[in-house]
Amino acid sequence: MTKAVDIKKLYRDTDDYMGKEIVIQGWIRTLRDSKNFGFIEVNDGSFFKNLQIVFDETLDNFKDVAKLPIATAIKVTGDLVKTEGAKQPFEIKAKSIVVEAPSSSDFPLQKKRHTFEYLRTIAHLRPRSNAFSAVFRVRSVAAYAIHKFFQDRGFVYVHTPIITGSDAEGAGEMFRVTTLDLKNPPKNADGSIDNTQDFFGKETNLTVSGQLEGEIFALAYKDIYTFGPTFRAENSNTSRHAAEFWMIEPEIAFAELEDNMELAEDMIKYIISYVLENAPEEMEFFGSIVDKDLLPRLQNVVSNDFGRVTYTEAIKLLQESGHNFEYPVSWGMDLQTEHERYITEQIFKKPVFVTDYPKEIKAFYMRLNEDEKTVAAMDLLVPGIGEIIGGSQREEREDVLAGKIRAMGLNEEDYWWYLELRKYGGVKHAGYGLGFERMIMYLTGMTNIRDVIPFPRTVGTAEF
Amino acid sequence: MTKAVDIKKLYRDTDDYMGKEIVIQGWIRTLRDSKNFGFIEVNDGSFFKNLQIVFDETLDNFKDVAKLPIATAIKVTGDLVKTEGAKQPFEIKAKSIVVEAPSSSDFPLQKKRHTFEYLRTIAHLRPRSNAFSAVFRVRSVAAYAIHKFFQDRGFVYVHTPIITGSDAEGAGEMFRVTTLDLKNPPKNADGSIDNTQDFFGKETNLTVSGQLEGEIFALAYKDIYTFGPTFRAENSNTSRHAAEFWMIEPEIAFAELEDNMELAEDMIKYIISYVLENAPEEMEFFGSIVDKDLLPRLQNVVSNDFGRVTYTEAIKLLQESGHNFEYPVSWGMDLQTEHERYITEQIFKKPVFVTDYPKEIKAFYMRLNEDEKTVAAMDLLVPGIGEIIGGSQREEREDVLAGKIRAMGLNEEDYWWYLELRKYGGVKHAGYGLGFERMIMYLTGMTNIRDVIPFPRTVGTAEF
Repeated sequence: MTKAVDIKKLYRDTDDYMGKEIVIQGWIRTLRDSKNFGFIEVNDGSFFKNLQIVFDETLDNFKDVAKLPIATAIKVTGDLVKTEGAKQPFEIKAKSIVVEAPSSSDFPLQKKRHTFEYLRTIAHLRPRSNAFSAVFRVRSVAAYAIHKFFQDRGFVYVHTPIITGSDAEGAGEMFRVTTLDLKNPPKNADGSIDNTQDFFGKETNLTVSGQLEGEIFALAYKDIYTFGPTFRAENSNTSRHAAEFWMIEPEIAFAELEDNMELAEDMIKYIISYVLENAPEEMEFFGSIVDKDLLPRLQNVVSNDFGRVTYTEAIKLLQESGHNFEYPVSWGMDLQTEHERYITEQIFKKPVFVTDYPKEIKAFYMRLNEDEKTVAAMDLLVPGIGEIIGGSQREEREDVLAGKIRAMGLNEEDYWWYLELRKYGGVKHAGYGLGFERMIMYLTGMTNIRDVIPFPRTVGTAEF
Repeated sequence: MTKAVDIKKLYRDTDDYMGKEIVIQGWIRTLRDSKNFGFIEVNDGSFFKNLQIVFDETLDNFKDVAKLPIATAIKVTGDLVKTEGAKQPFEIKAKSIVVEAPSSSDFPLQKKRHTFEYLRTIAHLRPRSNAFSAVFRVRSVAAYAIHKFFQDRGFVYVHTPIITGSDAEGAGEMFRVTTLDLKNPPKNADGSIDNTQDFFGKETNLTVSGQLEGEIFALAYKDIYTFGPTFRAENSNTSRHAAEFWMIEPEIAFAELEDNMELAEDMIKYIISYVLENAPEEMEFFGSIVDKDLLPRLQNVVSNDFGRVTYTEAIKLLQESGHNFEYPVSWGMDLQTEHERYITEQIFKKPVFVTDYPKEIKAFYMRLNEDEKTVAAMDLLVPGIGEIIGGSQREEREDVLAGKIRAMGLNEEDYWWYLELRKYGGVKHAGYGLGFERMIMYLTGMTNIRDVIPFPRTVGTAEF
């Protein structure tokens, strides 16, 4: 059989096909018919844009074609011709239209606009809508940009475990993973669950971060990154929280906080540039339909140096701003989204790294600064979102780390291998985490995390 | 501070650095000292091979350097010089050696060989050994090769869900994911667990396959792939089974079984070629230390067309072979590893697709052939391993699919959206699954799956 041409190829290499007879396959997105002719917009999934088909009574099956429901899959043979002055640059004059797979006339994605809320209930069909076809292609292109960025720089990609036997990560509420019979679990004499009878011989949970294992690999390969799913069992039903999301966690050795910031800045700029270049039609769609400020904002990020400010300076700037915040500003407090957004949007008007936070509000593994009050942490704040990256230089001094683990009431034994990394050539190292979905929201202007995940998992919802 | 040069760069762009003073950083792998000079092999993680450092009494700290333990991290300044006739092409004549991070002298990876079993118990250090440093770099390079292969062909990468609310996949034993209190779970009046009180409002498990959701995306984007973790709660303690492993599942629309085989063959050849080209030192190591037949075997795969044989023909060939199998051969049986290996190793002597299996031994979603006895399934068998890929053309006919769901005693309602895909332009489509770890075993010659996963999860084990 004649191989169909991807519609993307017609748009990208138009000259190769112009004036020639070609075959395309795809799904009907719209169909308008008059008495003796009609227009079909076909999409084959290879490209954001549709291809226009003109057909007329010279087709044997003109009357049947004119009645085809939306979503019908068709195979079209015809000549590719220029359409001077029309919206689309070219169209196909059909010589033959054959149905590859029929569609029922009740296809839910008819031409009228649907709410994103409704489209979530038909997640098996929403990738065929304009908005979601754009979102999930951008998601794919951005994922590849991330791999390419790190691989081109010699970073090793590491799959850290999803099921974890330690709760050493301490970054949030966890999901239990078990094969025990919930109705009748084995119990110890004291009534507690006998976890030795569980699949792994102990209690296991879904990971909240691959960082600690990432450090193992950074102390072998110098530069590594993870890119995998992570989980939070937090009961927060907001537009920014999902129970299952993907995270990128690079970790670099022989490196300090400054190197970490450079890497994060380069990475963010690379992802944006790559997506603008490789999904231009989708990005134009977001810039015109979803958020008019999107493209200027992204261009601004790519072409300016990110700001740098210490937490202590930032607190001072906030206090001196005269702005009336809901949460009053004082040294020692955790920055709220309103503060973060004020810093990046009003004070710096561009992405900014806030560094050196009070040790009390940051994790045990962050490196204690010489002032002994702050740690070498960094959060990247971006206009329109707030925090998009959190990272730090890690505490490489075994005694200081052990002291902090004890001081925070954690169990030193749970961290035996993490401490041992510091015993054998535990050089300075640093890393950060980028929430992939937050990056996709930033790239597309979409405001609900449920609309940038193919099949979102949130409190009370695990459909499809 | 002067930026250190990656050791990889010294090997790849030697001329740029030859004769010049450079700075490198890395971990001591070996150290030999004589009375007034010594040699250090340093590895900085950027490259499989070490860099040799020569040092002598001109160093202030000669005596201290000569006693440095293995795994100490050092910073070396010195001139890069050629070493005619020596094993290594060049070395650094040290002018200064500074300790970046000390190591304790009891570092477990001393020069003597350790068993892979022992190294599994120190998974936080084994990436620093030759063998595992090679394995996990090949894993990273192969992962990237897979992304590159599909992205270059316009495939959309989709993250299918890890936590699944349906057990519609039916491909194996599942892990339960829950936030219920195991000691005291909420119960219904009849004593069963009240799953409505669980995090997602129902019973959820870890996915065993992203295929069904992958089909959703293939029917929107035509060509898609998944690459993510999958889980099996099977109590099988073998060298080939892990509870957590990564899988690649492409799915293509407007496609039949033949297209599926072409894609799989191109992909396997691409991955092998890419890894041979981009990790040549590691592959040479595997070919000389782990498996002498490895490189010829891989070259043979790349340079020959894969064989094609139907299940029915394969059964006949096995019966006619005169070979005495442990499991006797008859039409309708599932092929055992001994049969698979005989077909690929003895009969074809190369990779071979076996197609069109009896419908009784394959999954409900595989397309029924016209003979109504077999389905459009394909398994790819490769010498040395047996099955490495399993796939099929999917049943696109709604009535046939619904009939098979009922006939297999499954609940049609659980599949509402899967059936609905067939209602709206459900074109012919096909796909397959490649177990990533099995591919890495095939690429490296490593024979235990625990040795190709950074932190393996198997029955009774979830360390690190």
